[in-house]
Amino acid sequence: MSPTIRYCEACGHPTAEKIPSGDHLPRRVCRHCGRIHYQNPRMVVGCVAEWQGKVLLCKRAIEPRAGRWTLPAGFLENNETVEEGALRETREEALATVTDPAPFALVNVPHVHQVHLFFRAQLEHGRHGVGAETLETGLFDAAGIPWAEIAFPSVRYALECYLADRSRGQFEFHISTWRQPLSG
Amino acid sequence: MSPTIRYCEACGHPTAEKIPSGDHLPRRVCRHCGRIHYQNPRMVVGCVAEWQGKVLLCKRAIEPRAGRWTLPAGFLENNETVEEGALRETREEALATVTDPAPFALVNVPHVHQVHLFFRAQLEHGRHGVGAETLETGLFDAAGIPWAEIAFPSVRYALECYLADRSRGQFEFHISTWRQPLSG
Repeated sequence: MSPTIRYCEACGHPTAEKIPSGDHLPRRVCRHCGRIHYQNPRMVVGCVAEWQGKVLLCKRAIEPRAGRWTLPAGFLENNETVEEGALRETREEALATVTDPAPFALVNVPHVHQVHLFFRAQLEHGRHGVGAETLETGLFDAAGIPWAEIAFPSVRYALECYLADRSRGQFEFHISTWRQPLSG
Repeated sequence: MSPTIRYCEACGHPTAEKIPSGDHLPRRVCRHCGRIHYQNPRMVVGCVAEWQGKVLLCKRAIEPRAGRWTLPAGFLENNETVEEGALRETREEALATVTDPAPFALVNVPHVHQVHLFFRAQLEHGRHGVGAETLETGLFDAAGIPWAEIAFPSVRYALECYLADRSRGQFEFHISTWRQPLSG
């Protein structure tokens, strides 16, 4: 999420909310030096890593959704490409090396200021293991995916797109939006 | 770009660079309250707006690359989807309404901490005009695109992918990386 920027990152003085000249949205602007603090969505990048018809899932060790299954994924870092980020997260969370990443599903998550981007990739040697933010990893065939225990709607969407495309033998790029429920 | 966060956004005290426990990258961490300030790439979203075989380009009124031609595009804002952002930027920069956005090209720009995402879209009624950050707008057929005056490599890549896919009658999703030149 995006906490309120109460103090200026450049000079440490308090900020106030205002719409800068020529802009159309309120920003946190420093009362002292005038710096405008822009806040923008962050990208989460991850992989559907496949091995002999199975896909790699991780049981989350951390909140949110600890104990639920997810695809290896995490925040894109500065100075890396989306492919590099997806491969790094797969290495960190599932101790797995993947090759040939191909982008195939993007999910907007505007209520938490995120954009999720998933790649298909090939799991090397079928090897995987338990990273620091993971309780357990496993390779699942289509019939074995624990749909009731999937951590996030974006992960469910990526898995559904992947399996549907694989069934018909043609992969496309998919885009969707995960909207916040009106209550709860 | 990403300026150094010298003061804590939450409490205004000075930060220091350190690698937080369990992390693998240096972050700006508040010396007083311990807040970790993550900095991540920002998305730029835009459109190839087409009308009767022509594409809409904008001559930039602002730096960088003032006076060069670009596709309407700009930073994705919090609370909007990538499609909404691309349509908003097209409206702001070229006073143009587009429909049916379809994602087709992503360009990593890691040296400035950006990811550029372009959509194909249909320009309504062929109408366009000059937005606040634009000097001139125009509809160009393939032979008329001012290649020598294109503002950014990512825009050139998007236009090349678009024209090549259109020529062969099939659109795919393309991904590339714009690397910083070693000098200059």
